[in-house]
Amino acid sequence: MKLANFKDVKLEDVSVEGAKNTKIRWLISKEENAPNFAMRMFEVEKGGNTPFHKHAWEHEVFVVEGDGLFVTEWGKRPFKAGDFIFVDPQEMHQFQNAGDSILRFLCVIPHEKKTVKTMNPFATGKANNC
Amino acid sequence: MKLANFKDVKLEDVSVEGAKNTKIRWLISKEENAPNFAMRMFEVEKGGNTPFHKHAWEHEVFVVEGDGLFVTEWGKRPFKAGDFIFVDPQEMHQFQNAGDSILRFLCVIPHEKKTVKTMNPFATGKANNC
Repeated sequence: MKLANFKDVKLEDVSVEGAKNTKIRWLISKEENAPNFAMRMFEVEKGGNTPFHKHAWEHEVFVVEGDGLFVTEWGKRPFKAGDFIFVDPQEMHQFQNAGDSILRFLCVIPHEKKTVKTMNPFATGKANNC
Repeated sequence: MKLANFKDVKLEDVSVEGAKNTKIRWLISKEENAPNFAMRMFEVEKGGNTPFHKHAWEHEVFVVEGDGLFVTEWGKRPFKAGDFIFVDPQEMHQFQNAGDSILRFLCVIPHEKKTVKTMNPFATGKANNC
C-alpha cells in the first residue's frame, strides 16, 4: 500500500525528441510492485507539448488542471480539467498546453511485462535492515 | 480515440454489499476497446463509503475532489485531492468520505482478460450503418 501526494514525487524532465517544456512524475509504477500498469502525472508548462508520435501501447488520460489541445492525424480538439482521453495503440497523438498556466494530466500505461510481487525481500535487495 | 468530460458519463449506483451512498462512472473500459485496464470515477456522497473488502486485483487511485479516510487492517489515514493511493492485490481496504462535500476519485483496475481489438466491425455487431 502507498498513499502520498503527487507533489511529493520527483519531477523529472521528459527528454524524448519532440517534447518541449514537459516533465513527469511516476506516481505508481513497478517500484510500488504495481503488477500491470503505471500511473504517471505529466506537467506541461505554458507553450510546451509532448511529442507528436505513436507507439504500440494505449494511454488512459485524465486531465487534472489546465487547458490543452489534443492532436491526432484527424485534427486538433481542445480539452480541459475534468476531461478524459483514451488513445488507442498505434494512434498518432500529441498533448499541447493551450493555456497560460501549467497543464497537468494523469497518463496510465501498461507495463511491458506483468510484475510478479516477490514475498522474499532478499530477492529484491531491499532486506538491508530488520 | 475518445475525448469527453467525466460528467458526460452515466452515473451508476454501486450496489455491492457494504457500499453506502457510492456511485461510479466507467470512463474508459472495454467499451472503448481499452486493451488492458479500466479507468473509473467513484463519487461518494457525504457520509458514504465503499465496502471494507479485498480482492485479487490491485487499485491505482487518484483523488480528484474532496476529503476521505483510507482504511486498511493497519488503521485509518486521511487523504485529500491531489493524493494517490496504491492498493496491493489481496489487501483489505475501504474509502470513506470524511468531508462535507462529495468525494471523487479515479480508480484504475486491470481487465480480467486482455481485450483484443477487432478491426472488423461486423464481428462486434457495431456495423449497423455505413
